[in-house]
Amino acid sequence: MMEDSKKHYVDNTSQSSSAGLTIRQKEPKNLEAPFDWIDSYLTPTELFYIRSHFPTPTLEGASYQLRVDGAVRHPFTLSYDELRSMPSETRVATLECAGNSRVFLVPQVQGAQWELGAVSNAEWTGVPLRTLLERAGMEEDVCEILLEAADRGTPKEEPVPPDPICYAWSLPRAKAIQQEVLIAYQMNGRDLPRDHGYPVRAIVPGHYGMASVKWLTRIQAVREPFHGYWQTSDYAYWASMEGNPVRRSLGEMQLKSEIARPRVYETLAPNRIYTISGAAWAGETDVAEIAVSTDGGRTWTEAEFVDPVRRHAWRRWKLDWLTPNEPGQYTLLARAKDVSGVLQPNEHDRHYGVYVINHPLPIEVFIGDSGRQ
Amino acid sequence: MMEDSKKHYVDNTSQSSSAGLTIRQKEPKNLEAPFDWIDSYLTPTELFYIRSHFPTPTLEGASYQLRVDGAVRHPFTLSYDELRSMPSETRVATLECAGNSRVFLVPQVQGAQWELGAVSNAEWTGVPLRTLLERAGMEEDVCEILLEAADRGTPKEEPVPPDPICYAWSLPRAKAIQQEVLIAYQMNGRDLPRDHGYPVRAIVPGHYGMASVKWLTRIQAVREPFHGYWQTSDYAYWASMEGNPVRRSLGEMQLKSEIARPRVYETLAPNRIYTISGAAWAGETDVAEIAVSTDGGRTWTEAEFVDPVRRHAWRRWKLDWLTPNEPGQYTLLARAKDVSGVLQPNEHDRHYGVYVINHPLPIEVFIGDSGRQ
Repeated sequence: MMEDSKKHYVDNTSQSSSAGLTIRQKEPKNLEAPFDWIDSYLTPTELFYIRSHFPTPTLEGASYQLRVDGAVRHPFTLSYDELRSMPSETRVATLECAGNSRVFLVPQVQGAQWELGAVSNAEWTGVPLRTLLERAGMEEDVCEILLEAADRGTPKEEPVPPDPICYAWSLPRAKAIQQEVLIAYQMNGRDLPRDHGYPVRAIVPGHYGMASVKWLTRIQAVREPFHGYWQTSDYAYWASMEGNPVRRSLGEMQLKSEIARPRVYETLAPNRIYTISGAAWAGETDVAEIAVSTDGGRTWTEAEFVDPVRRHAWRRWKLDWLTPNEPGQYTLLARAKDVSGVLQPNEHDRHYGVYVINHPLPIEVFIGDSGRQ
Repeated sequence: MMEDSKKHYVDNTSQSSSAGLTIRQKEPKNLEAPFDWIDSYLTPTELFYIRSHFPTPTLEGASYQLRVDGAVRHPFTLSYDELRSMPSETRVATLECAGNSRVFLVPQVQGAQWELGAVSNAEWTGVPLRTLLERAGMEEDVCEILLEAADRGTPKEEPVPPDPICYAWSLPRAKAIQQEVLIAYQMNGRDLPRDHGYPVRAIVPGHYGMASVKWLTRIQAVREPFHGYWQTSDYAYWASMEGNPVRRSLGEMQLKSEIARPRVYETLAPNRIYTISGAAWAGETDVAEIAVSTDGGRTWTEAEFVDPVRRHAWRRWKLDWLTPNEPGQYTLLARAKDVSGVLQPNEHDRHYGVYVINHPLPIEVFIGDSGRQ
């Protein structure tokens, strides 16, 4: 802690109630959350980022049907009411778009230019996918669970299939049967808004957002890995097999920390205590430590956590910084460590292409001239 | 047969000895065979089409080593002489580039604009891959055999890995253990020329040419499917899994027939017997019948075969045509049927993208004015 009780404290915790979203793409809707708005552990539903691949479909609860079939002994179909009447669970999960922070990549790459806010944290209510799979009676040789959605269109990344497709994503069997994976119908205690998947969506805690399929209409157990468009052309990366690059689907979220305050290019008063704050999250591990640098990475100071450890949810953190006397530009960085001692990488790994931007992101701020304060 | 003994026969069998290749890409070398030159069942080595992905590597027999390893009990390395001293087989196999006939696609698509000649037929000598795998002792759970090559570079189709790669292709285990798959060092009775893979290449009869890896340096048994660049970004197509497009590697050659004579836009004399000729081939089946149309597909006549059935090799065919009296443009088509009764498709299947162009290709010819003969 760099706290110094003799300094003046700047009150930077009061929030405007009129926060909004940032448009990254108008249609389909891709809207970024105001990441500086993290006073609340749960992101208010109206400030939760929106990532859509195709125009929002207009499903109705009254006519909604969810089909559970494929390599199962007892395929079945559920109405919206039937799903809601099943034993449900409520869980907190952070969703992050795999392309979050893409705007920090230099030179610029293709895709929505997300800054810090393609990540949000909410409470989700639904039926564990596991319950549905148990009822259906999966065959032994099922390797993946395919989640199919109602949104449809022609995607953009090459190679592109010749006809319009629906959004679809498959989960490895081992993940699909974990208790935390929900077939959700509520978000923060209310029915899902249309842009967040009404009436029903998947929530796959610990995986990048593309796995949490919105407007879910079919759950299919499959015996072969599903190499669909999203998992090959788009949300995929180059892993290595004996020195040869091989194409794999993205999955687990990678350890990451972001600075929420100060904001990018914010000007701060010199020689004051400023509370730097942010949040950190990981996939199937827990965030254990946050280090913050205010000098571009030369020196690091440990921050303190605001939230306890909760698997699959972010932990907010803060650090009081005595701002320098010297006016000028300063580069702030935050770097998380997980419980195994693994740190965020120093640089973006190019094998991830336009995804998994989880190196410490430089936040440039200015210290003003004290004479002008 | 449309033969008519009263007509004059045009001698269209004599060949110029100065046939050459057509450049489709200068570097890497992509050169098309003269498909009208099919008097010889075996394509002369110097007229065999050349398809390379990267600049030709300069390997030497004296220092060459072939590594056989991966999920095997007894990995080993062979020198060029050691490989050549093993019991070898000689087999005829037709190789066709999966993009052959691409120039017939309208609108034009990306890639080398192959016409009819990215297909050739040769006799190959080498050691069955099966023999090498038996010596190495494959583990039970091996699912593919990965063939790795010495040619290296940065490929072009998106998505592209961030660093240069070597050419590599995997075969399903079931195909790799077939006796016909050769690790070859000779072509038409002579050592492989450099552009055809000297010192050693794979020959995978029945599969498109991309599987017959040139400049082979390593054979690796792998336990997981290999989703390398060539098998995902490039030589892949959109199959279907329950209505969802899924990306699959190309493999088996599809049934196809091509007309060699007359040539595209050739002008023929009216009211003469002209011998239409060509060749047909298939992957893991045999060509049983050829029908030829000289009126754009309205009527069809059965052609006769020049060659017997030999699995994995082309069969040449011919048909004597009494050319019409009426001057003008005529569209010739040839359509093969396999032993199961399956015909070539009427149209290119768009799910194959820029590959598998195996519909009957229209060859436009002109009948001249008899007054000008």
